[in-house]
Parts: sequence; structure tokens; C-alpha cells
Amino acid sequence: MEVILAKRAGFCFGVKRATQMAFEAAGKHQKTFTLGPIIHSPQVVKKLEDMGVGVVKDLSGVQDGTVIIRSHGVMASELDEAHRKQLEVVDATCPFVKKAQDHVKYLSDAGYEVLVVGDADHPEVQGIVSYGDASRVYVVASGDEVRQLPKMAKMGVVAQTTQSFDNLKSVVTECLRRGGEVRVFNTICDATAVRQQEATELAQQTDCMVVIGGFNSANTRRLTEICTELQPKTYHIETAAELRPAWFVGVNKVGVTAGASTPKWIIDDVLARLEEINNSH
Amino acid sequence: MEVILAKRAGFCFGVKRATQMAFEAAGKHQKTFTLGPIIHSPQVVKKLEDMGVGVVKDLSGVQDGTVIIRSHGVMASELDEAHRKQLEVVDATCPFVKKAQDHVKYLSDAGYEVLVVGDADHPEVQGIVSYGDASRVYVVASGDEVRQLPKMAKMGVVAQTTQSFDNLKSVVTECLRRGGEVRVFNTICDATAVRQQEATELAQQTDCMVVIGGFNSANTRRLTEICTELQPKTYHIETAAELRPAWFVGVNKVGVTAGASTPKWIIDDVLARLEEINNSH
Repeated sequence: MEVILAKRAGFCFGVKRATQMAFEAAGKHQKTFTLGPIIHSPQVVKKLEDMGVGVVKDLSGVQDGTVIIRSHGVMASELDEAHRKQLEVVDATCPFVKKAQDHVKYLSDAGYEVLVVGDADHPEVQGIVSYGDASRVYVVASGDEVRQLPKMAKMGVVAQTTQSFDNLKSVVTECLRRGGEVRVFNTICDATAVRQQEATELAQQTDCMVVIGGFNSANTRRLTEICTELQPKTYHIETAAELRPAWFVGVNKVGVTAGASTPKWIIDDVLARLEEINNSH
Repeated sequence: MEVILAKRAGFCFGVKRATQMAFEAAGKHQKTFTLGPIIHSPQVVKKLEDMGVGVVKDLSGVQDGTVIIRSHGVMASELDEAHRKQLEVVDATCPFVKKAQDHVKYLSDAGYEVLVVGDADHPEVQGIVSYGDASRVYVVASGDEVRQLPKMAKMGVVAQTTQSFDNLKSVVTECLRRGGEVRVFNTICDATAVRQQEATELAQQTDCMVVIGGFNSANTRRLTEICTELQPKTYHIETAAELRPAWFVGVNKVGVTAGASTPKWIIDDVLARLEEINNSH
């Protein structure tokens, strides 16, 4: 059985950077914690906990120490609270997410109504949105939702970094249809698109796909969906321990990919376990 | 034979305004002329000539008098020249075209590369373009042409007022694909779309179409194309004198529409002539 690992499997730039910053802080500071999970990988979160870095849901019970801001970013008010309480802040917000936050603030201050293309329930989006005037920022999943919005003369548009280009396009087209000014900052990070493209190609060439990543990771779940459509024999796992030898009986080629928040050590474990399964067949 | 006139046949807002301004100026000032034809209607141009208002191609031979700026607008340098020569200026540029010119100037001054969606040969577009820094303004007919352009971080987009929404959409989509900032002022005037939509509906209901307007009028020619596609018995005329009774033999319903630069008196003449033809059958 041949095992093919996708070139861009695993950590994207922002997640890699956030994880490094968190592990560095863990070694340096006492009383360190992350505000929400640093990335959507329970294994990384657990590793940090083992090093004394816990997760808090909010800052209400925190009076001192070091707070690490996760890669997805947090609400502007939470960052303000951390500064007000004079906590040490390690801001591991992905620079691409930070840009989207900054654009929302700029557009909102400049008098635009701001449309954020994304998933309203995702923490990244909730963070981005919080940088604008709440009464004039809207989260829209697609162009259809733009039609429900009130009339607006100056429309600003940014996107959740992991959105598809088609969603951004459909929102912008509906904005254009309304006339007036439409000012778009394309904040989509192409790491997601490139990873999905590679997974698509791999799923077409192989007869089984393994997708590694947190069950709470939206981008990993989306990868799984994309692979399943092309290759029904697709398995979403978090760790090597979940692999079942029975899945690979009669399989000639297995493709492996991993979400943006999946650390290299977990991918390596999976590859090693696949090697074992292969040898025992 | 029933004759149905399209509701929005003839003068649009900008053309009506320009024509009124020109006729007013003709009565008031000595030595009055228009810089290029005031609108794309040879009959209106002729009427003004009869009132002593000639057409000049440029200002090189002009030293004094009143210059009327046509509805399509002129190049920024021509307007400058008129002011430098201390000519009296009656600016009949369509306010919607003026807006497009102003947006190009604003975007260009603010450091954007500016894309003008339109027909590079049209005088309106040549005027609009002249308001930006020549080295950083591009005329594009569609999204395909955007792909040929050099890399640019801040893209400004405006449209010729008579462009189709689909052209604007395809240009903006290609700009978005390049990433960075895309700032669009949708300067399309919907008079054109509304007139085309009405002509489409009329061509479907009738068994003959008459389109009235200057043979040099792009929007009239486009109306003729649209009608011909649905109704091969479509005739483009400039005046009532061109109507041939033979065209209407066996016709039950004839639809009449007219381009944006066709004056009411010409439409009325055509309707009267159609009535005559009808009575003589």
C-alpha cells in the first residue's frame, strides 16, 4: 500500500506562529493561560496544559498573569479588558486575521456599513466583527443574505480568512447591484484553497483518504466533506490511535491530508501507524 | 395596426438637461458653439446650428465666445483650455458622467490604479479617463482584459454610465481574484438597462419594431441589436421620412422605441407618420 501525504497538510502560517508563541510563553512566564483554545487542536491544547498553560473562557476571574490571544483572535472588548487589568498579553492572532480586524475598524470609522463574509458562529468572525460599530456591521454567508439588508450607500466588505472565493464574489456582486460605493478588502488567505485543491487531487488518485484534525476544526471538517464527495472511503481522525487496519484491506493507495491546526507530530504518528498496518497485512 | 410606444423611449435625464441648456444658451449668448456634438442626434445638432450654435472639434481656433460642454463630457485638458482662454463655459456634462469623472480623479489622487469599464473609443470614456493620472488608468471592456494588466495592490473601478452590469461584475470579480483592495463606484445609470428591458418586452409582443435614433448613437445601435435578435423585422431610422409603408404590410402590432438622444419631436413625427401609413392601408 502506497501512502501519499499532501504537500500542504497541517499547520498554516498563522497556526504555526501562534503555537510557537504559546510554547515559548509557556516556558517563560508563570500563570499563563490562553483565552479560548489557542488553535482548534485538542492535542496541542492538552500539551500546553501539561506545561501549565490552561484555557480560560473569559477574563472575569483573572486578575494577573500572562494571557495568550489565540490564532483566530478575540473580541476587541476582551483585548481591552486584558490591557485594563494590566495582564501581560502575548497576541498570537494570525496576522491575516488581524488585517481583517483592522480593515473592519478602518471601514467602520470611515462611515461604511461593513459586511463580513463568513460564518457568524465562528470565533474568528465574532472577533473580526467586534472591531466595527455593532449597529453597522453585518455577517453574511452569501449574496442571498445581502438582499435582506437595509439600503446602504457606502458598503465595506471583508472576509473570514478561510472563506471560499465564490462566497466573497457573490456578496460583492449583490453589493454592486445596489449601486453606490463598494470597497472590498479581499482578506481570504489562500492556504485554505490550496489545501482543499490538493486534497481534491489526492482523493481522485487514491482509493482511500485519511483526514487528520480536530473534530472541532471547521476547516478539517470541510476537507473531510470535499474528500468524501470524491472518495466515499474517507476517514476523519484526530490521532493515529483511531486508525483501524480493516479500513485498508484491499487498498492500494491511501492519501493523507490534515487541517490547518493539525501539528506535525500527529501527522508523523499517523504516517508511522499506517506503515505498521501496511507491514502487518 | 396597433402602435405601442415604449414608456422610456427617448431622452434620458442627462440628454434632456444638456439639450435644454444648449437651447437656452443659444438664445442668450453671441458666438456660441458646442465642443463636439452636444448629443448623438444629428437633428438636434442641426437645429442648434440653425440657431447659430455650431460645432467645433477642438478649441485651437477659438479665442472668445461661449462653449457648451456636451452631455458625454470632454477631456479635462479641454475644459482647462476653455477656462484658460476665459471662454464662457456652459457645462452640460451629464451629472452621472461628471460623477464618474470625479471618482476617477479622487481614486487616482488617492493612489489607486483606476480601471474604467467601458468602450475605449467612446467620447464619454475618453473624457472620464482624462481625469486620472494617465500612467495608472486603464480602460477594460471585460474581466478577460483585467488578466492582462500588471500587478496592482489598490484597484479603483468605475464604469461608463451606459455599461451593462455583467461587464462591471466580470471586471470586479477579476480584480477581487488578484487580492488586495478593490474600491468600486458603480456609476452605471440604469436608464439604459430600463430602456433595453422595455424594448425586449416590446419586441416579444409585437410583429415589427421601429427604433429611432442617431446612426452615430451607440445606445440606439445596441437597442436595434437587442430588438433584432427577438424580432428580425426591426428597423433603425433617424427620422419619420425613412419609414416605408411596405414594412408594415400584414403587421398587426408595431413597437416603437428610441435611443437616449432622440428628441420627443422626432418620436412624435414617427408616430404621426405611422398613423398615416395605417390609415392608407
